Amino acid sequence: MPTPAKLLAGVELGGTKCVCILGTGPDDVRALERLPTADREETLLHIENVLERWRAQHGAPRALGIASFGPVDLRVGSPTYGFITTTPKPGWRDTDVAQRLGRRLGIPVGVDTDVNGAALAERRWGAAKGLDDFAYVTVGTGIGVGTIVRGESIFGMNHTELGHIRVARKPGDAFAGVCSFHGDCIEGLASGPAIEARAGMPASQLPPDHPTWDFVAHGLGQLMHIMVLSTAPQRIFLGGGVMCGQAHLFDRVRHELKRSLNGYVEAPELGQGLPQFIAPPGLGEMAGPLGALAVAAEAEVRSQAMGAATTAASR
Amino acid sequence: MPTPAKLLAGVELGGTKCVCILGTGPDDVRALERLPTADREETLLHIENVLERWRAQHGAPRALGIASFGPVDLRVGSPTYGFITTTPKPGWRDTDVAQRLGRRLGIPVGVDTDVNGAALAERRWGAAKGLDDFAYVTVGTGIGVGTIVRGESIFGMNHTELGHIRVARKPGDAFAGVCSFHGDCIEGLASGPAIEARAGMPASQLPPDHPTWDFVAHGLGQLMHIMVLSTAPQRIFLGGGVMCGQAHLFDRVRHELKRSLNGYVEAPELGQGLPQFIAPPGLGEMAGPLGALAVAAEAEVRSQAMGAATTAASR
Repeated sequence: MPTPAKLLAGVELGGTKCVCILGTGPDDVRALERLPTADREETLLHIENVLERWRAQHGAPRALGIASFGPVDLRVGSPTYGFITTTPKPGWRDTDVAQRLGRRLGIPVGVDTDVNGAALAERRWGAAKGLDDFAYVTVGTGIGVGTIVRGESIFGMNHTELGHIRVARKPGDAFAGVCSFHGDCIEGLASGPAIEARAGMPASQLPPDHPTWDFVAHGLGQLMHIMVLSTAPQRIFLGGGVMCGQAHLFDRVRHELKRSLNGYVEAPELGQGLPQFIAPPGLGEMAGPLGALAVAAEAEVRSQAMGAATTAASR
Repeated sequence: MPTPAKLLAGVELGGTKCVCILGTGPDDVRALERLPTADREETLLHIENVLERWRAQHGAPRALGIASFGPVDLRVGSPTYGFITTTPKPGWRDTDVAQRLGRRLGIPVGVDTDVNGAALAERRWGAAKGLDDFAYVTVGTGIGVGTIVRGESIFGMNHTELGHIRVARKPGDAFAGVCSFHGDCIEGLASGPAIEARAGMPASQLPPDHPTWDFVAHGLGQLMHIMVLSTAPQRIFLGGGVMCGQAHLFDRVRHELKRSLNGYVEAPELGQGLPQFIAPPGLGEMAGPLGALAVAAEAEVRSQAMGAATTAASR
């Protein structure tokens, strides 16, 4: 009989909604609860109540994972570790999430960005199984990129946040962009709200031949060009609300990538393998909440390793 | 008495010259020889002769490191592993370097890009000591970026090659660019040859108030913006021929980075620490050849680990 998997809890903290989840993986979700991301104190109290109710019902989880919108401070040892920092979301600037929830539950807590979490979930349970170097891109309310290098998310001076890079504009594209920080960064040019501002209607209502898609495909192609040359993922999973139901967009983005690289990188991924190289993710709408569980699973492993090291040292 | 360091050999394969090096580090270079990168067969024979002469004089090195201009195939197990692939350099397309030199010398061979090698050398012996996540940028005949994540260079579907990304252009900059693949990628816009094409004179002769520097600083600032959000280095070392003697350019690049990020990332590195965040490398012109030695050192460690694993498995 296989070892029973460890019970984990997760919180996906999104810009408009939070999802609390309890379980061991996609086939064993014991509880899931959605709540709006509203007033910050109210929201955090709501999350705490959900997690404590679950603990009473299901027993204590081994670890909690938080997969959060960013920017979030992930510098271990920083006094504001696990805080949401410079978000434009009203009332949420400089908000302690991880330290507060960790104190409340008394279990190991891991934090990562929502997109890094989703990428880790795709690797553990979804379309990225067996891949050590890949990326997960979501194009929705914002544009987010989770980047995995040698099996882990990247953390240097900060977490990565590739949705806010500026890209070369398509000639003739004079749209000012909608990002409150950068105007025409890629999120400002090609996210759901950007498409709606460009076209005067939501992305889901745009026909495939609407000219706005040309600008969106160009921008996403430039993002992929930069990803290929900056971390060289083995695959790029491209999901999120804007991609849903827009099958034509995948081919356009692949075409724009290939055109822009212009033969500079020779690899099977950019030739015959291109349809697999840029492809939809595997977990669909569950990637976000399962991302929080994946972050919890990594925190649990780290905490075990630290515990083992401490035990060994004290012998 | 400390263990004597292991003798290593390296070849920095550059677009215009190659440097062969023998030693254990910057304070113990036993031999160094420069030769032009000319006809490919002639050049490779010349390198083989140098390495064999040194072996006769100094004994066999423990490993050979090759730090090469790119693109180079670094996919372990690929039939063209260690080949230079799509280079625009005449006569060098699809050239076996690593397999050939490895067979000739019969020692472990490591290969990486020239800039990844230089970054690893800076970490081992130079300005990046103690850093696990950083980047090394050279602005010279081309623009190259070596990126280190958790102490190692990145390798996914390919090595990274950030000098060939397209960036957002400075308004009013209509220069077509000089890259033979991409025209106005960052190498095409801001490398030494690009500056000379823009200004009609070499970068070294341009006064600090020449308007060309505005375009160069803007382009490099965009590159740094993308680096901060793609791999979030703890420091970026900015060197190469164009940067030499252009102290003003460092401040301009820092300014462009800060202006472009527009407060989105809050980190000491982008505030008071900015002068240290973007700073010159430590090894100067020796970064390239020492990069080849650093690649050799990593190959030697890997080969020891594999040997140990093999020994353990055969017990």
